[in-house]
Amino acid sequence: MGTEINIKKIADLDLEKDRGIQVESSLLTKDASEIINDPEIHIVVELIGGTEKAKEFILSAMEKGKHVVTANKALLAECGEEIFSAARRYGVNIGFEASVAGGIPIIGVLRYGLCANKIRSIFGILNGTSNFILTKMAEEGLPYSDVVKEAVNMGIAENPPTLDVEGIDASHKLAIIISLIYGSPVSYRQIYTEGITEITLDDLKFADEFGYTVKLLAIARDRGSFIEARVHPTMIPKKSILASVNGTFNAIYIDGDFVGPNLYYGLGAGRRPAGSAVVADIMEIARNIINGNSSSPPLIELDRPLRILPIEELESRYYFRITAIDRPGVLSAISGILGKNKISIESVIQKGRRRKENDFVPIVMLTHEAKERDVRKAVSEIDKLSVVKGKTMVIRVEDGF
Amino acid sequence: MGTEINIKKIADLDLEKDRGIQVESSLLTKDASEIINDPEIHIVVELIGGTEKAKEFILSAMEKGKHVVTANKALLAECGEEIFSAARRYGVNIGFEASVAGGIPIIGVLRYGLCANKIRSIFGILNGTSNFILTKMAEEGLPYSDVVKEAVNMGIAENPPTLDVEGIDASHKLAIIISLIYGSPVSYRQIYTEGITEITLDDLKFADEFGYTVKLLAIARDRGSFIEARVHPTMIPKKSILASVNGTFNAIYIDGDFVGPNLYYGLGAGRRPAGSAVVADIMEIARNIINGNSSSPPLIELDRPLRILPIEELESRYYFRITAIDRPGVLSAISGILGKNKISIESVIQKGRRRKENDFVPIVMLTHEAKERDVRKAVSEIDKLSVVKGKTMVIRVEDGF
Repeated sequence: MGTEINIKKIADLDLEKDRGIQVESSLLTKDASEIINDPEIHIVVELIGGTEKAKEFILSAMEKGKHVVTANKALLAECGEEIFSAARRYGVNIGFEASVAGGIPIIGVLRYGLCANKIRSIFGILNGTSNFILTKMAEEGLPYSDVVKEAVNMGIAENPPTLDVEGIDASHKLAIIISLIYGSPVSYRQIYTEGITEITLDDLKFADEFGYTVKLLAIARDRGSFIEARVHPTMIPKKSILASVNGTFNAIYIDGDFVGPNLYYGLGAGRRPAGSAVVADIMEIARNIINGNSSSPPLIELDRPLRILPIEELESRYYFRITAIDRPGVLSAISGILGKNKISIESVIQKGRRRKENDFVPIVMLTHEAKERDVRKAVSEIDKLSVVKGKTMVIRVEDGF
Repeated sequence: MGTEINIKKIADLDLEKDRGIQVESSLLTKDASEIINDPEIHIVVELIGGTEKAKEFILSAMEKGKHVVTANKALLAECGEEIFSAARRYGVNIGFEASVAGGIPIIGVLRYGLCANKIRSIFGILNGTSNFILTKMAEEGLPYSDVVKEAVNMGIAENPPTLDVEGIDASHKLAIIISLIYGSPVSYRQIYTEGITEITLDDLKFADEFGYTVKLLAIARDRGSFIEARVHPTMIPKKSILASVNGTFNAIYIDGDFVGPNLYYGLGAGRRPAGSAVVADIMEIARNIINGNSSSPPLIELDRPLRILPIEELESRYYFRITAIDRPGVLSAISGILGKNKISIESVIQKGRRRKENDFVPIVMLTHEAKERDVRKAVSEIDKLSVVKGKTMVIRVEDGF
């Protein structure tokens, strides 16, 4: 029962940097092939990031019969099919708990704890940087650009923070989750992705007036013959537990057909949470090695391609913020376009008139369920009205929790 | 890879009742020994509840080399040492995911996902009935007795709801969690337990004014040579994520030394969540059987008795609601007693005087950290003052999330 786990070799390009721990220097090397070619090594842990070298190392290690633990979400989200196929072909385990929300053991939960369930939907706050920015904007009334600067200074965001604020990091993680729960590899390129860069303080204020909070959500939903897969700013009810997930925290809300609603909450990043996830993977693989490598349930059925619902086919409720001249007839022109496109309005906020004639004011609306294709058509028509200034802001609304 | 799982036999005292599913009648029996003595059965699932018969069946099944899955929290909380010892002696697995918060796969998370962590503390909302009652009181301003009646009518509470509202059900679950994370069986009798029956609407209102919410929490905390283990109503910051756990939902907040803060949220009870947990256990054990019964990590080290911190030694912040005559000098008499007992006050609410002389008014206080022993002594002195009416209400305060 049990076994000892020994570190045989550590490869790094920079062996001089102080990492705050004592390591015997004989363990260190600059050459990763010393690890990959060492027949005494059973498990290779890849934490270098990037997709080229990492992929090469992982595939060679698997070819040599080694199990792999990785935190590399970009690689799995881009080349998941190749990596998971190789693991299957060479009969090795691949652990990737650290690749999605390092501080939440969500991969294990999906593989084991919820294994009796069909997952009906998932709503994830998967990018701590974006969540920090939206939280800070909402709580302190600071504009996007100021908060981004602060996040960069605090080391919470990279400079530029593109991967985070454009939603790409969240879509990487969603691709991995979808691959796992729906049993077929999905590339993040198939996921409709929109970031938080256009969100204004006005949007957060209006959302609040309607009883909502804005979060960057990664959403997957089983629609029978299709899977919804999308990442975008989303208005969710202020009273929902997801709305209480603030700052750099991540959370994943799961609706399983037996278990019902579940939420998992923790830190999204950081050395120590990532370490917790990597060690859990190593321990699981070590148990599998003792038991003859056969005990992990199959990860992904590669023969079942998923059909992702095209974003135009999405049905959702929507928030619109239209900037229009404050003049009689404007609201009626806008409503006419919406009606013509089968979009019905649930509520409107139009604030008192400004002092000057022909001033621009925001007209803010929540719609009933409508089709994305119709919404896009309607918004493009609205934006062409001479009384409307700039582009209409569109935020999707989710109430299902 | 994988195996089929077949139901060989189902024993129940009542074979007539319609349970909404079709079962071949040849599978049914009224005699549990037909299951226990059947050499073809590998896994016995015990869902009868109660502690006597259930214990007998489980121990006999284990003796025959059968693995056991149980949802029986009362049994594990009372006789955990005996059950876990037997499992070890006979080399069988015991699955009990359904015994704690059926709709949250917390046992698996603690055994696998967080296995790299020392758990520093756990704060659980583990009783859905109590949480429903407190939520409803706070949200709708209804007194305890009305809400309990409603909960009984809705089928959320049993009649009488003693096990739930007295905190006993929560302490059963806490005993199981502590046994698991600190590696030594604990009986729920060792856990200091206080229910929600004394909580008034006034307490909820004052808590709100101080920025807190009242929840029935099951708390475990590693204090080095001692473990804190206690169940009682607790004031927690309104802004904390645990405070957003409302209605019949359960949640477990865990602080691990590597992973940091984690929250797990889901339904606490119900057939379908419990079914989800039982099936996850069966699947895990089936994998272990395929792999020669050896892959589950050891559950509990029986040779490491835990030392539970006596409640008198607890250090905490406290809320007091004292009912006193509204007369000069009363507050100073009370403060004097507190000061003498090394209890310092952080804030006080004393509402404007009532109309009549000598009317009773509530005096409400939050203290800085103090020792439970000192608090008990002080409160007993305060309650003896002639200007004080009835018993002082004491609620412990936790800020650490």
